[in-house]
Amino acid sequence: MNRQDNKGIFITFEGIDGCGKSSQTDLAAEYLESRGIDFIKTRDPGGTALGSKIREILLNYEGHIASMSELFLYLADRAQHVEEKILPALSEGKVVLCDRYVDSTIAYQGYARGLDKQQILDLNSIVAYGLMPDLTFVFDITPEVACSRLGEKKDRLEAECSEFHKKVREGFLDLAGKDPGRIKVIDAGRGIGAISEDVISILKTRLSC
Amino acid sequence: MNRQDNKGIFITFEGIDGCGKSSQTDLAAEYLESRGIDFIKTRDPGGTALGSKIREILLNYEGHIASMSELFLYLADRAQHVEEKILPALSEGKVVLCDRYVDSTIAYQGYARGLDKQQILDLNSIVAYGLMPDLTFVFDITPEVACSRLGEKKDRLEAECSEFHKKVREGFLDLAGKDPGRIKVIDAGRGIGAISEDVISILKTRLSC
Repeated sequence: MNRQDNKGIFITFEGIDGCGKSSQTDLAAEYLESRGIDFIKTRDPGGTALGSKIREILLNYEGHIASMSELFLYLADRAQHVEEKILPALSEGKVVLCDRYVDSTIAYQGYARGLDKQQILDLNSIVAYGLMPDLTFVFDITPEVACSRLGEKKDRLEAECSEFHKKVREGFLDLAGKDPGRIKVIDAGRGIGAISEDVISILKTRLSC
Repeated sequence: MNRQDNKGIFITFEGIDGCGKSSQTDLAAEYLESRGIDFIKTRDPGGTALGSKIREILLNYEGHIASMSELFLYLADRAQHVEEKILPALSEGKVVLCDRYVDSTIAYQGYARGLDKQQILDLNSIVAYGLMPDLTFVFDITPEVACSRLGEKKDRLEAECSEFHKKVREGFLDLAGKDPGRIKVIDAGRGIGAISEDVISILKTRLSC
């Protein structure tokens, strides 16, 4: 199982909570469907049955989770996801649309939680058989606007709005600056339609569809 | 948080399923209690509230778990366990009795599942802040005798009795051969009292109690 066997295209959707990436993943999926392109839409964490159980712990555990434990839970989910779902789809020539992947791990656990970024990349490489996305969208938005969009979820997240999400955002932008060929930054402070037009324009070029 | 700060003694109990290590951990705990020694008894996986949730997945998930995902779940549990429970106890000068630890990971995921043993050690070092046991008991028994002891659990495990547990057992013995100063092999094919006498004899010498 290695990247050389894959014929599909792996596309990831990234950004801070409330940036609108899940809606954009759905709109991209609708577009691919309308063009008759064979694809799967998935998410990280929680893209597999095992991953749903891990995601439940990550999102709902009420006590303190040690940063390193949190990182390894995300990576355990990814190991299953890549082996069970992403690599098989790619090897069948499918486009894979994935809501979050390695850049989230580096932005959240590295830039924001302070774990070593190169170590995260090395660990990710182990669980993902070296699989990196071919194309990544980062939906960029200020934490303040993101929080105001979160509605009823706002209370839970607003304490982290200021410092934590600022660091996460800076992480994504820094990663994009280092790999502009793969990572496309989309201004997500606009309406959902305008953002989707940008995404689809890039997909058209990349997938020739 | 590092090993130099610890004043306690970290003792682990290892062996294949059905070897009797959990009973021996209990008997060792009773002995320490009778000698007035300050200790905690814990287990890996599942030594913390978070770990119980991870352990539930590891022991009860009915689908296939990718080997690398399984490894990272064990390590996520260990990260929490070491940070939340083991290191604090050691830093308070306590003896820590732990049912399974890194040697199980190497024997099961390395020797038996075929993952890279050095990589497992390196990953363990990351999640455990380099913490290794001061003393380890390996309760050695043939897979056949272990299975015959498992009673009603026998059916679930007997399919693995032959090849899988043979590899795990060889793993433990190989690890013991490489580190005889730390790892003491106890013949666990005898009665529970005779085994416990050996363990307590070693504990007396090691803890001067």
